Amino acid sequence: MIRLIGIDPGLRFMGWGVIEVDGNRLRHIADGVLATDGDQSVPLRLKTLHDGLMALLEKHQPREAAVEETYVNRNGASTLKLGYARGVALLTPAQAGLPVAEYGAMAVKRAVVGTGAATKEQVEMMVRRLLPGATIRRADASDALAVAICHAHHRASASRVAQGQRMA
Amino acid sequence: MIRLIGIDPGLRFMGWGVIEVDGNRLRHIADGVLATDGDQSVPLRLKTLHDGLMALLEKHQPREAAVEETYVNRNGASTLKLGYARGVALLTPAQAGLPVAEYGAMAVKRAVVGTGAATKEQVEMMVRRLLPGATIRRADASDALAVAICHAHHRASASRVAQGQRMA
Repeated sequence: MIRLIGIDPGLRFMGWGVIEVDGNRLRHIADGVLATDGDQSVPLRLKTLHDGLMALLEKHQPREAAVEETYVNRNGASTLKLGYARGVALLTPAQAGLPVAEYGAMAVKRAVVGTGAATKEQVEMMVRRLLPGATIRRADASDALAVAICHAHHRASASRVAQGQRMA
Repeated sequence: MIRLIGIDPGLRFMGWGVIEVDGNRLRHIADGVLATDGDQSVPLRLKTLHDGLMALLEKHQPREAAVEETYVNRNGASTLKLGYARGVALLTPAQAGLPVAEYGAMAVKRAVVGTGAATKEQVEMMVRRLLPGATIRRADASDALAVAICHAHHRASASRVAQGQRMA
């Protein structure tokens, strides 16, 4: 049995979700969204996200982290801002000694819904089905739980491979 | 008299420079470059940069920080990487309680050389002239000292404005 945290990074809203994995069984522990005040300076907003993530790691004690590889759009300034938030999402679990995996949106959708072309709504529906008890007040929390589920699948496959068994 | 740290962020090389400002007089305290290993994972590289910056803040005790606003190019993936490093450069001094100012490359060149069209070589030459004793093993350190000089000028102007005097 292992606890995982999934993170969907953003400067305004950072989704997070903690699950427990026991073989093929998944269990919801907690989920939520860290929000920052757009009127504050960027350095203080990054500090809010860092403090919030560190507190979650201490409270829920996950052993591994998975971060969604965010979509890179054409607008350089907004990509840079996303980079700040994603930098904090990668840094904080590394500081707590957790291995950090990254998954693209397609891989997350494939792991949760079965197809990389799934809609946001389909992802959230499957996350709710797979993890009864999830709160998901905002879509960011659903995406964070989805990347945690994705990591649970991939690390299970990796461990089957390591044991010399064939992958599905 | 106040100590300032300038930071030129990058994931591979992060330049830094500490200066002391006393009225119009500048003094070089220290400069250098934090380097990360491209073979390591991004989360561990960000941790290396964070640890390094935090150690510099503790050692040199600057009271304010200035970070160069990095050029946003067309390549989304490299902009995102720059964003990670810049996020750490903004976060770390904020965690240490320092106010963090940001300056674009044009403003830095104007403050150091007198023209926003200055070349890298002109900036480095002026930094060496203004700050005898600067080591500057890599251009990143020169850029970091330059942003610290820029901040020294701007905070002096801001304080003149606050005192009701006219700006030059």
